[in-house]
Amino acid sequence: MASYQDLSTPQLQSMLSDLRAQYAEFQKKGLKLDMSRGKPAADQLDLSMPLFDVLNSSSDMNTSDGFDIRNYGVVDGVMDAKRLFGELMGVSTEEIILLGSSSLALMYDVVVRAMVHGVLGSPKAWGKYDKIKFLCPVPGYDRHFAISESLGIEMIPVEMTETGPDMDAVEKLVSEDETIKGIWCIPKYSNPQGITYSDETVRRFANLNPAAPDFRIFWDNAYCIHDLYDEHDELLDLFAELKKTGRANMLFMFASTSKVTFPGSGVAMMIATKENLDFVRKDISIQTIGPDKTNQIRHVRFLKDVDSIYEHMKKHAALLRPKFETVLEALDKNLGGTGIATWTKPRGGYFVALKTMEGCAKRVISLCKEAGVVMTAAGATHPYGIDPKDEDIRIAPTYPVIGELKLAGELFCLCVKLASIEKILQTR
Amino acid sequence: MASYQDLSTPQLQSMLSDLRAQYAEFQKKGLKLDMSRGKPAADQLDLSMPLFDVLNSSSDMNTSDGFDIRNYGVVDGVMDAKRLFGELMGVSTEEIILLGSSSLALMYDVVVRAMVHGVLGSPKAWGKYDKIKFLCPVPGYDRHFAISESLGIEMIPVEMTETGPDMDAVEKLVSEDETIKGIWCIPKYSNPQGITYSDETVRRFANLNPAAPDFRIFWDNAYCIHDLYDEHDELLDLFAELKKTGRANMLFMFASTSKVTFPGSGVAMMIATKENLDFVRKDISIQTIGPDKTNQIRHVRFLKDVDSIYEHMKKHAALLRPKFETVLEALDKNLGGTGIATWTKPRGGYFVALKTMEGCAKRVISLCKEAGVVMTAAGATHPYGIDPKDEDIRIAPTYPVIGELKLAGELFCLCVKLASIEKILQTR
Repeated sequence: MASYQDLSTPQLQSMLSDLRAQYAEFQKKGLKLDMSRGKPAADQLDLSMPLFDVLNSSSDMNTSDGFDIRNYGVVDGVMDAKRLFGELMGVSTEEIILLGSSSLALMYDVVVRAMVHGVLGSPKAWGKYDKIKFLCPVPGYDRHFAISESLGIEMIPVEMTETGPDMDAVEKLVSEDETIKGIWCIPKYSNPQGITYSDETVRRFANLNPAAPDFRIFWDNAYCIHDLYDEHDELLDLFAELKKTGRANMLFMFASTSKVTFPGSGVAMMIATKENLDFVRKDISIQTIGPDKTNQIRHVRFLKDVDSIYEHMKKHAALLRPKFETVLEALDKNLGGTGIATWTKPRGGYFVALKTMEGCAKRVISLCKEAGVVMTAAGATHPYGIDPKDEDIRIAPTYPVIGELKLAGELFCLCVKLASIEKILQTR
Repeated sequence: MASYQDLSTPQLQSMLSDLRAQYAEFQKKGLKLDMSRGKPAADQLDLSMPLFDVLNSSSDMNTSDGFDIRNYGVVDGVMDAKRLFGELMGVSTEEIILLGSSSLALMYDVVVRAMVHGVLGSPKAWGKYDKIKFLCPVPGYDRHFAISESLGIEMIPVEMTETGPDMDAVEKLVSEDETIKGIWCIPKYSNPQGITYSDETVRRFANLNPAAPDFRIFWDNAYCIHDLYDEHDELLDLFAELKKTGRANMLFMFASTSKVTFPGSGVAMMIATKENLDFVRKDISIQTIGPDKTNQIRHVRFLKDVDSIYEHMKKHAALLRPKFETVLEALDKNLGGTGIATWTKPRGGYFVALKTMEGCAKRVISLCKEAGVVMTAAGATHPYGIDPKDEDIRIAPTYPVIGELKLAGELFCLCVKLASIEKILQTR
């Protein structure tokens, strides 16, 4: 296909009127699709239904170390679950705590308490600075940015490359400014690109020399086992690398079973050195008497062991693969060679990221919406919701069924073409 | 029985050596009992076992308003649960939110976020003051005090009377000092006394004129339906009273099903005006995508309606009543008329409070411990763990079985006698 920029104005005008007619047809279909969030679909949720059979009124209600899971106690997670998820994440039971269902809530709570108490080694509470800052690889995850914004933490964007954040920028920034206290990372199958940080990127993280003695890498390993293909990305183990460089306290890792079993009813985990966790645990033991141990045991008995967790994830992959492929085929077929968009081809995770021509993303999203397909808001993948080039779009293919996705994919490409031709014509 | 103070020194000395011999016998028994915390016993937990049968792999997984409880969403609780618990607490579904299992965590989170953001109507974030203060009725609940202490909130003790906190003191203090931002209350069957605030006390709360425009009453209604007898205490509805006086935003009420179904796996609730909750909800929607909706629906389908909740609580009462009576009989029989202790006789809740002679509480707790019975630490019911008169003891009769309680009650009374006679002899 010819690059749109190379086409003559009359050619583009003629295409535009064709596209507008097609768009009008789409509007008549009365679509009502939501591709805005990374939600599992109902058939994925069905995979974990046996979890609800694990505990019934005649079940053994004790942990293997003899705690009644129905009563108070065990402030940071039952040992059976620490053992299973510790093994999955490659850490010891002293390096993991399990609290609630939402890793987002764990992250929020860690940061809000750091505002009041600092973290291990903080010269003072983060809230006592006039201003503290977090580095934000962009495009990135809107809910990370929302935590920073809500707590008044200034966000400094850092470009994402194909191998992770621009590490030259990261190294320079953290070494110069002791008010930079953290960086938000989704290191495997990043949200929204599906990029996995390269070994070199991870090693550079392990060798950071931040000016702040209490700088933390917020390593949101949300998609650590969420591969789409047998041939999948491998993320180098940052915790192990940090231990080699003597910087292990720099890491706060997070994960959950939200997209393994059930969002909202899974098990959330935080991984860090025992020293870091001891510091965090002081606050947690003030906040609560303990998490829902019944749900942790439900997960241990349902998921059984690490091998069966990976088997379970293959069933998710089998359902998700065709959805990703449907979207990528639509993009290839409709936008390949047009020069008006580039996009990622992830081997895992929950998203595809697409870059439009500069100044087109908002228009694309708005066109989609007016034809009944809700996409993630333009700008959402940038701090403060502001994408300076108005070019980044996050596509979430997981929730709709394939038939819907085909339609939505066609419509989306149509909207990208429409917005791009409008833009090209405006600038001629 | 003669008052110990009236006995001669030789009489007391002779009693002391008898008591020491009895104590030595107790030590030989090798008791291992825990009366330190307000934990339900296993037979109470058994009452709710059918809760685990509510959801299985063939259950309907939708709320009555059509949300899939297995997926993301519904940030502050499912409507079915808001309806049930709203009715139970006498509030509308707009005046209640349901988050997690722990009302303690809800309280902690509200206060920690107030440190960073203030509450509705705050002139500035609570953390921006040099010092803010909370009033603490004493003796009171150690975990409330721990939240204040952990967040650097100065605690001002206020005496508890038989009708609730000393309201003269409360009224005076809050009207004079705008850095007093809150008061911790357990208004029905208070921890540790089991006192229910009188109608007059509640009305005086409803007419408070705090200097701080953002003063909040933390109304921890932990034992709102936890009656031991059909003839039970009635707590006047503070929310309704505050609505009459135009001060409804002054209330943050908390409750949970921790002692209705399962501690750690129950449903926690916060009750306040819609305006207050809208303010809180802004932060909650940054913190999390939503609570465990499966557990909320489990509770709705198990508890069914308000009448059956009260029926369920009668089963708890039937198990708890004999335990309270065992302890109270031991106190009456052994300490009645001795003049060395006074205690409460609650009609609900989880505790009995006992006052020793001044300077004896620590010694009693330590004697109990050395004979194998762990009681709540002396001082725990006071801010900073310091009981200036060293006289307050919290007795938690709910967890041990009756046979153990009889033994523990005898031992406890023996220790009170020992410590008191030692004290009397020292001061002669």
